[in-house]
Amino acid sequence: MGGEKAPERVIIVLHRPIPEDVQAEIRHKFADAEVSFYNSELGVPVPPDHLSQHPILRESDIHVTTSSGIHGPPIAEWTVMNWLVSSRKYAETYEAQKAHQWQNKNGDVGGFHDQVGKRVGILGYGSIGRQIARVSQALGMTVHAYTASPRPTPESRHDHGYIVPGTGDPDGSIPASWHHGTDRESIRKFLAVGLDHLVISLPLTPQTTYLLSEEEITILSENSHHHASKPYVTNISRGKVIDQKALVDALHSGVLGGAALDVTDPEPLPEDDPLWDAPNVQISPHISSRGKEYIPRSLDILKVNLGRLAKGEPLINDYKRDKGY
Amino acid sequence: MGGEKAPERVIIVLHRPIPEDVQAEIRHKFADAEVSFYNSELGVPVPPDHLSQHPILRESDIHVTTSSGIHGPPIAEWTVMNWLVSSRKYAETYEAQKAHQWQNKNGDVGGFHDQVGKRVGILGYGSIGRQIARVSQALGMTVHAYTASPRPTPESRHDHGYIVPGTGDPDGSIPASWHHGTDRESIRKFLAVGLDHLVISLPLTPQTTYLLSEEEITILSENSHHHASKPYVTNISRGKVIDQKALVDALHSGVLGGAALDVTDPEPLPEDDPLWDAPNVQISPHISSRGKEYIPRSLDILKVNLGRLAKGEPLINDYKRDKGY
Repeated sequence: MGGEKAPERVIIVLHRPIPEDVQAEIRHKFADAEVSFYNSELGVPVPPDHLSQHPILRESDIHVTTSSGIHGPPIAEWTVMNWLVSSRKYAETYEAQKAHQWQNKNGDVGGFHDQVGKRVGILGYGSIGRQIARVSQALGMTVHAYTASPRPTPESRHDHGYIVPGTGDPDGSIPASWHHGTDRESIRKFLAVGLDHLVISLPLTPQTTYLLSEEEITILSENSHHHASKPYVTNISRGKVIDQKALVDALHSGVLGGAALDVTDPEPLPEDDPLWDAPNVQISPHISSRGKEYIPRSLDILKVNLGRLAKGEPLINDYKRDKGY
Repeated sequence: MGGEKAPERVIIVLHRPIPEDVQAEIRHKFADAEVSFYNSELGVPVPPDHLSQHPILRESDIHVTTSSGIHGPPIAEWTVMNWLVSSRKYAETYEAQKAHQWQNKNGDVGGFHDQVGKRVGILGYGSIGRQIARVSQALGMTVHAYTASPRPTPESRHDHGYIVPGTGDPDGSIPASWHHGTDRESIRKFLAVGLDHLVISLPLTPQTTYLLSEEEITILSENSHHHASKPYVTNISRGKVIDQKALVDALHSGVLGGAALDVTDPEPLPEDDPLWDAPNVQISPHISSRGKEYIPRSLDILKVNLGRLAKGEPLINDYKRDKGY
């Protein structure tokens, strides 16, 4: 990793214990650096904004980089799994297997549509949205991207962060159309372009709180593209991006065809919440980013950046102190 | 559809009733032709080899074309859905939702791997295998193709049949390696290349009967590529391609990591068959090709071919009387 230009010290801070073998692997990989590990204790409450108030962030110019980009593959897998589980009625197959029943009705070609030709709108075209776009395109779908700032040029559509090799949409060539804006009117225009799927992959901010309320759901539904199925909503952002009461109503009335929710309002979702049993909803407990690749990929970013530091190149995923991310 | 060169008569034969509106649509599309419909009665047993012995096939040179190519998207969706349901332990999420339980253990990054970097071997690289390859590549996987005859040139790797627009691998550019053969030794060599997934998408013939038996399963398992997970077998061919007893044993012993089976031996699978409860197996009742696009896509092939007939061009999916398919 570089030789004489290598950094003198690397501090690795993680919110969970770092296994001994992983520590050894890191020391081995970065043999030229003095490596230390620090992990916050599990179960000990962390004050809100703990990290963003930390002296390293507030009072130093030490390089800090984020793990942005590592979540694309698992969250895209979670998303596409839920689409297919819903559209292909997997729960029926699962229950039939549990009961040892071979439920094949002769002559029935199946009461469902596949994803070919469907149109997915992705609200927030970051690393996660891009990997969802990649798989959607492979399934034969058309992708429509929405970003906060305009992306009029090919260069502006590139992904400049960390990308898990072999995934994503590095040059932003997948979307059939690009849309943008930070106001509600722009988002409503996007929801009217004719979508079969809406994926919400935006941060929660005052502007995005209850972004998808009754009126937006109506716009999405009334302008949906497919001749027979109603739009399907996927939320991998935060629960409060959706007006959950309006969502439950839209699922019951058939205004929406279904929803996959990795996040709810509140979390944990109370046992008696009506969302649990709304029609065609699939709920998971904020687990879509999980997987054993979480830590190795975080370390991969560190490895890339140590190489760049050694060569004096700009870092990827550099934390911007002025923007707070 | 052509004008003066249009065919005089089109006969549409289907194994199920053709709805009036679909009939009207076809008559409208092929206004220059005399269109008639024939469907075999549901519930009336059809003699084995009924169609292959039909005078039209045996004694005429009337063009007959097949529906090959229409099954890629639904079967690829079925396949990838099962991979993700298995790898991401969807059944746990599903059962927790039924019980209204938010099961999120703090600090747990999930005991599973995603598909990035995994290697899939596809036995039988036809239209179905190609669409599975397309989605696999999008998920970050590497594809290894196996065909009966050698495919040494770029031209020999093309798909010349019907392809659902926007899907498949028309020019055969996806596989990282190509393998071939019709004997057991060639298949064993393929199983040893280091795979995480094996997809069986071959016709059942005397050569492919019990193709995957105890010895082949051992070869697949001992040479598997991933550092932590054992190979996963997907069968979308026919049940008898696998020695089912050997498969059940391999699932119990952990020699295989799991299996998705749309076909079993026999069908229907008897209620007391040990396969139903083997570890990490997902069984569906021969439904992977189903979907509402089945008939529209069959008619799309007809439409393409009527256009080609009118222009005197060779047909796609032309039935080869000498080969029987």
